Amino acid sequence: MESAIDKHLKCPRTLSRRIHDEYEPPFAMWVARADESLQQVVMAYFGVQFKSEQKAIALKAMQHIVQSFSLDNGPQNHDITHHTDNQGYENYIVVGYWRDPGAYCRWFRSTEVSHWWDSDERLNDGIGYFREIVIPRADQFETLYAFKEDLPGVGAVMDDISDDIQEHGYWGSARERFPISQTDRMLANGELHIISGDPEKGGRVLVQGHDNITLIRSGQDWVNADEKERELYFNEMLPSLQAGMDFLRDEGQALGCYSNRFVRNVDIDGNLLDIAYDIGYWRSLDKLERWAESHPTHLRIFTTFFKVVTGLQNLRLYHEVSVSDAKNQVFEYINCHPQTGMMRDAQMT
Amino acid sequence: MESAIDKHLKCPRTLSRRIHDEYEPPFAMWVARADESLQQVVMAYFGVQFKSEQKAIALKAMQHIVQSFSLDNGPQNHDITHHTDNQGYENYIVVGYWRDPGAYCRWFRSTEVSHWWDSDERLNDGIGYFREIVIPRADQFETLYAFKEDLPGVGAVMDDISDDIQEHGYWGSARERFPISQTDRMLANGELHIISGDPEKGGRVLVQGHDNITLIRSGQDWVNADEKERELYFNEMLPSLQAGMDFLRDEGQALGCYSNRFVRNVDIDGNLLDIAYDIGYWRSLDKLERWAESHPTHLRIFTTFFKVVTGLQNLRLYHEVSVSDAKNQVFEYINCHPQTGMMRDAQMT
Repeated sequence: MESAIDKHLKCPRTLSRRIHDEYEPPFAMWVARADESLQQVVMAYFGVQFKSEQKAIALKAMQHIVQSFSLDNGPQNHDITHHTDNQGYENYIVVGYWRDPGAYCRWFRSTEVSHWWDSDERLNDGIGYFREIVIPRADQFETLYAFKEDLPGVGAVMDDISDDIQEHGYWGSARERFPISQTDRMLANGELHIISGDPEKGGRVLVQGHDNITLIRSGQDWVNADEKERELYFNEMLPSLQAGMDFLRDEGQALGCYSNRFVRNVDIDGNLLDIAYDIGYWRSLDKLERWAESHPTHLRIFTTFFKVVTGLQNLRLYHEVSVSDAKNQVFEYINCHPQTGMMRDAQMT
Repeated sequence: MESAIDKHLKCPRTLSRRIHDEYEPPFAMWVARADESLQQVVMAYFGVQFKSEQKAIALKAMQHIVQSFSLDNGPQNHDITHHTDNQGYENYIVVGYWRDPGAYCRWFRSTEVSHWWDSDERLNDGIGYFREIVIPRADQFETLYAFKEDLPGVGAVMDDISDDIQEHGYWGSARERFPISQTDRMLANGELHIISGDPEKGGRVLVQGHDNITLIRSGQDWVNADEKERELYFNEMLPSLQAGMDFLRDEGQALGCYSNRFVRNVDIDGNLLDIAYDIGYWRSLDKLERWAESHPTHLRIFTTFFKVVTGLQNLRLYHEVSVSDAKNQVFEYINCHPQTGMMRDAQMT
């Protein structure tokens, strides 16, 4: 057993863990590892928002974004999702992961990419676009997997999987897997602000974030699950999960949840895959913790998971959580409805 | 709002809290306060164990113990409970609270009390007796009340009620209400040992404890509750509570729960009152925390409590939790069945 915090990210603590050194978790879980060359990662969510009748245009736009990932300096990993939001809009999101922010910058600043994104044509495509990009440093994110191979998300751009880790199985363990938690509470400062544009008018809107906005990606993959595990997922877990995710989407604002999207993976043609995850933005990690450890829907998911985790074979459950500095965030919306992403809770300045 | 840790018990921290300084709990709760003259309290559980056919003798024994509390240096507060254990024995427990361990010693060493307890007659009464006494220092216990008047248990021997306190509403808050948690993790050392007698043979058995055995008293009082609150208690809370308490009683050993008794208050004649509490002994506070924050029955109790707490009028919910040094514990059993109290998990030496 080893700490979730990798050796090269350890430092003298000013903040202690909840658990004592001899704590033993009730079952094994693992985290992704990367060597010191990984300094900062880019998690870039590119969205396409549309009404059903514009599906053909939206699909093409999504495919264009995916194709742009093949250009020089493109991401090392990506996946594609679909969801319908609570305003009745469909959304494709293509998320790319870069292990090197420099490569991301070179990619984004390439003519093909930046011209496409910045072009006025995007304002006239008849659909919406958004990009939500956070660039956490190596000490600003944590992962947790109930499996050890073919890591999804940020894990795919890292090097390896850990040995069994100690910091899991108790509330507060996500925080304690963050290397920065050794010395920093990751508190929010400031508020979301509209710094350009007007959500009600459409067009381009830029939202300014603040330090320590917390992004969680929490996923389930039942591609290779047998009937029994599918039953477990669909009957025992999904109802609570869906209720919890709907609650956060519709009523999360009061709790500090800026945006919550429960998305389903799709292939390049938009066909549904047996993979899903939630993308949640929170004002700060402590707000996410309070919800996770007290809301009945999440507690039900959690107790079910505890009950079945040691028997899981091919139902793959995991999450990744990050915080980022305001200066390492980009939130841009083009012709999206005003409830989209960070716009909903952002103040006009 | 103020800290659950009283001013005179604050000290420079070596261990940090889970919460940040600006944390605001979702609703108000309170703790008992005492001035610096309270250095250490005695929580003394005196038990009478019997088969139903010996009820008359047992009742007399229980009444004798209660009457002895009126002698000089008796406790400032006491109450009486009844429960049937999982071996089919009934038990009366009289619990006394002393604010001054010196007074307790003088009381117990008085001829009337010590002679009665030490007399060989107790071996021949045809019923069992036990005493479980823990004497935590002021920094070794915490309380939590969802009400502010007529505090039960240890609160009744203290001076006052706090203002709204900060450390509640999150997992780990019980620990963080302990003054000693500022510098000490309250870890268990050693094991329970039989130091005299043999549980299988009956007679007198003494069990040696170890540092930081954790005692929780967690109570409900529906004496003045109206129909709606009784319904809430009996229909929404009690089923989960009963299931959780039965689980700990019967299967708690593997989790570090040494003993669990869900008891009902009675009057001096043994008539049931509308007051109940659980008396749980744990190897250490972290074992109790792990159970409380992960077991479905407790999570259900917890989420129900969260839902209804702000509306509670006369359903009184509270708990008190203590740890104690091995040298400040007494566990003695006289003709009790070998599953009683600390005997079940104690090793013969």
